[in-house]
Amino acid sequence: MPIEITAQLLEQLRAALERADRDAVLLLVEDLHEADLAEVYNELDPDEAHFVYDCLSEEQQAELLPELDEDVRETLLSGLTNQEIAEAVDLLDSDDAADLISELPEERQEEVLSRMEDEEHSDDIAGLMNFDEDTAGGLMATELIRVNLKWNVATCVREMRRQAEEVNEVYAVYVVDDNDVLKGILSLKKLLITPVRAIVEDVYNPEVISVTADTTSEDVGNIMQKYNVVVLPVVDSLGRLIGRITIDDVVDVIKEEASKDYQMMSGISEDIEQTDKVWVMSRARLPWLLVALCGGVVASRVIGFHESSLMVHPEMAFFMPLIAAMGGNVGIQSSAIIVQGLANNTLSRSGIFQKLLKELSVGMLNALACSLLLLAYNVAFHHSLALSFTVSLALMIVILFACIFGTIVPLTLDKHNIDPALATGPFITTTNDIIGLFIYFMVARAMYGLF
Amino acid sequence: MPIEITAQLLEQLRAALERADRDAVLLLVEDLHEADLAEVYNELDPDEAHFVYDCLSEEQQAELLPELDEDVRETLLSGLTNQEIAEAVDLLDSDDAADLISELPEERQEEVLSRMEDEEHSDDIAGLMNFDEDTAGGLMATELIRVNLKWNVATCVREMRRQAEEVNEVYAVYVVDDNDVLKGILSLKKLLITPVRAIVEDVYNPEVISVTADTTSEDVGNIMQKYNVVVLPVVDSLGRLIGRITIDDVVDVIKEEASKDYQMMSGISEDIEQTDKVWVMSRARLPWLLVALCGGVVASRVIGFHESSLMVHPEMAFFMPLIAAMGGNVGIQSSAIIVQGLANNTLSRSGIFQKLLKELSVGMLNALACSLLLLAYNVAFHHSLALSFTVSLALMIVILFACIFGTIVPLTLDKHNIDPALATGPFITTTNDIIGLFIYFMVARAMYGLF
Repeated sequence: MPIEITAQLLEQLRAALERADRDAVLLLVEDLHEADLAEVYNELDPDEAHFVYDCLSEEQQAELLPELDEDVRETLLSGLTNQEIAEAVDLLDSDDAADLISELPEERQEEVLSRMEDEEHSDDIAGLMNFDEDTAGGLMATELIRVNLKWNVATCVREMRRQAEEVNEVYAVYVVDDNDVLKGILSLKKLLITPVRAIVEDVYNPEVISVTADTTSEDVGNIMQKYNVVVLPVVDSLGRLIGRITIDDVVDVIKEEASKDYQMMSGISEDIEQTDKVWVMSRARLPWLLVALCGGVVASRVIGFHESSLMVHPEMAFFMPLIAAMGGNVGIQSSAIIVQGLANNTLSRSGIFQKLLKELSVGMLNALACSLLLLAYNVAFHHSLALSFTVSLALMIVILFACIFGTIVPLTLDKHNIDPALATGPFITTTNDIIGLFIYFMVARAMYGLF
Repeated sequence: MPIEITAQLLEQLRAALERADRDAVLLLVEDLHEADLAEVYNELDPDEAHFVYDCLSEEQQAELLPELDEDVRETLLSGLTNQEIAEAVDLLDSDDAADLISELPEERQEEVLSRMEDEEHSDDIAGLMNFDEDTAGGLMATELIRVNLKWNVATCVREMRRQAEEVNEVYAVYVVDDNDVLKGILSLKKLLITPVRAIVEDVYNPEVISVTADTTSEDVGNIMQKYNVVVLPVVDSLGRLIGRITIDDVVDVIKEEASKDYQMMSGISEDIEQTDKVWVMSRARLPWLLVALCGGVVASRVIGFHESSLMVHPEMAFFMPLIAAMGGNVGIQSSAIIVQGLANNTLSRSGIFQKLLKELSVGMLNALACSLLLLAYNVAFHHSLALSFTVSLALMIVILFACIFGTIVPLTLDKHNIDPALATGPFITTTNDIIGLFIYFMVARAMYGLF
């Protein structure tokens, strides 16, 4: 049952740490799940963290490390010797081990690997460290169970027993040929219900979905989601089985992708959390504010250019914020739909022209609704006809323009391999502000000439 | 290997459908994964869809149904008889079956359940349909493998063989006592490497994380992510094992949560995709545009109230869009950080006052940077001192205010069990527009009095 880290537990732990009472510390933390212990670590200072680490068993130490927040782990590792790290890494799955060693300063990496007891394990880890972290190779672990096509079930089970010693969790059994080329999977269910004399070749499932090591993590996430698989085998360019990715690692990728898009839209340029330091948060947020600031300055110049009209018709200023805000909102809606569609692979197969046409139809419907409402309001509140028609007509044009802009920009960015999410957020609102004001004054000039 | 649905495949399929050539259709679709076939279905009209369904084997029919988009499935099911649906449901896992039957019109549900062959299965499904779909009960399936604490490994394997016939995928073996109370898990690895005479009680792992049926799906997602589990057992209030949730179902929940927040921020009120119909998209987007429109109208009245100042100092209008945009952007940043923190459970344990203080420190840093830059610009471009100081001072106040507002609103909504994501998006930008303009004119009045 998951537990809440209580203030009481933290208080007791702090008291035990103050007395440097190892037994009391151990008693408090030994039954915690490593994920809960990692949360406790967020509240400890480096000396306390090191003391608690020393109290743990070797297994607990190893399990704790991958669960820690990156900055907490960095501090803790910097206080450990290479030997201590090597001992922990020896007990970790290869994917977690490779991630952990990659975070160490380069001069320590070699040293830690060479101090590991299990040489095969350290070779595997060194191999994994060569892959880009945003690819299937960077996500995969090498621990898996493989059986040969020609074995019978009894041999399989015997071999699986041997291999299982190395593997922490068994989710699937992979079937390979003599060249180690992945041929299919043998489900545990099949293994359970098949007579022991049966040959693997006759009972395995050849329909297996696999990826190559250079597949991007985003694609890995999409594939696992689409095909509902919990573990995905990874092959090299010759189709040989080299690793497997479990979905729990991919869930993190999926969440990171989603929160990257979210932060981009909210005008935050780094992955930050509310618990980060003030200056880190400030640094992540300032760039987009400066973009908006520049946009505001440009907008001020557009308005300044029409100062003479404003002197004659100061009421024109009334609806400037409305026009700017509506353009920004529609632009965000349009681009958000494209960005999500690109992320989830759910865009229609039609060309950019069809997509624009559709978006313009949606825009036209909403533009008509908003413009007519606004016209009714303005006429009812006795604003001049010139102003009333200016505002409504400008609003329509601005909305349609924002639809076009919001659709084309993310699609174009994506085509040039730039993150389309850049198109959402302050950039699009700022640009729409400026263009919206420009359109507004153009329409006003025409209208005030008419009436 | 995952395949792309090609235009060529669709063309061939359409040609075969036109000739009503069953063999040709079958040849084209029989090797497709059901997830790929579901994508093909998005492109077919109802008659074509029905024809293809008829060509499929019973297994393929059953596997296809849960993969289809909800609207495509609804159309297809409305064309099938209760008997046909019952036959498909008989082959589905209980969770998918319950979801599918729940989507049928109420008068058909009873009928389909009663036509199922496997009575135990239909009882299980009827039981699952009682749970709220946003809870662990609504996510779980009843198919699982359970062994008794007192059995030896040989009995376990024999019993597992028997139970495995019912279970499509085996991820874990659950250990229960005589009252069916969940005691722990037996990993497949342990089962493989333990002598057959050993008693389960001596080798099982009592540390198992479980949830009760009324746990919310959001919590289920957080727990599975935090503890890195691929399958999670569900117990009733007495601790008896009643089902299990696999992570692939939870990934969908996690993605839905993330995209809900994303759509909320972009001012879209329903879960829509780019492929949805024009009027569906228009309907999903119009409500927030109307919110922004009302906000704009209120803003116009704030400005109208200061028309006399504008007539004397028309240059005051220059920076209105800048002030409004900056307030909106800062407000979104602040609230997005809180919303993400709430969603991921990463908010600090400190009270609302500490959170505000921190946010204000961040805001102050960025407000100073932006205001000073703007002051330098305005002085350099020979705007009057009154205007220059008005704009910079108003900007500072607006940014700080937006920080407070952006922090307090989502926290307050969350406290009252309203989705905090409501605080992001058009609502906060619109409110900040109005308050920003108000502050701007107040500051202007003071400043133009001074200089």
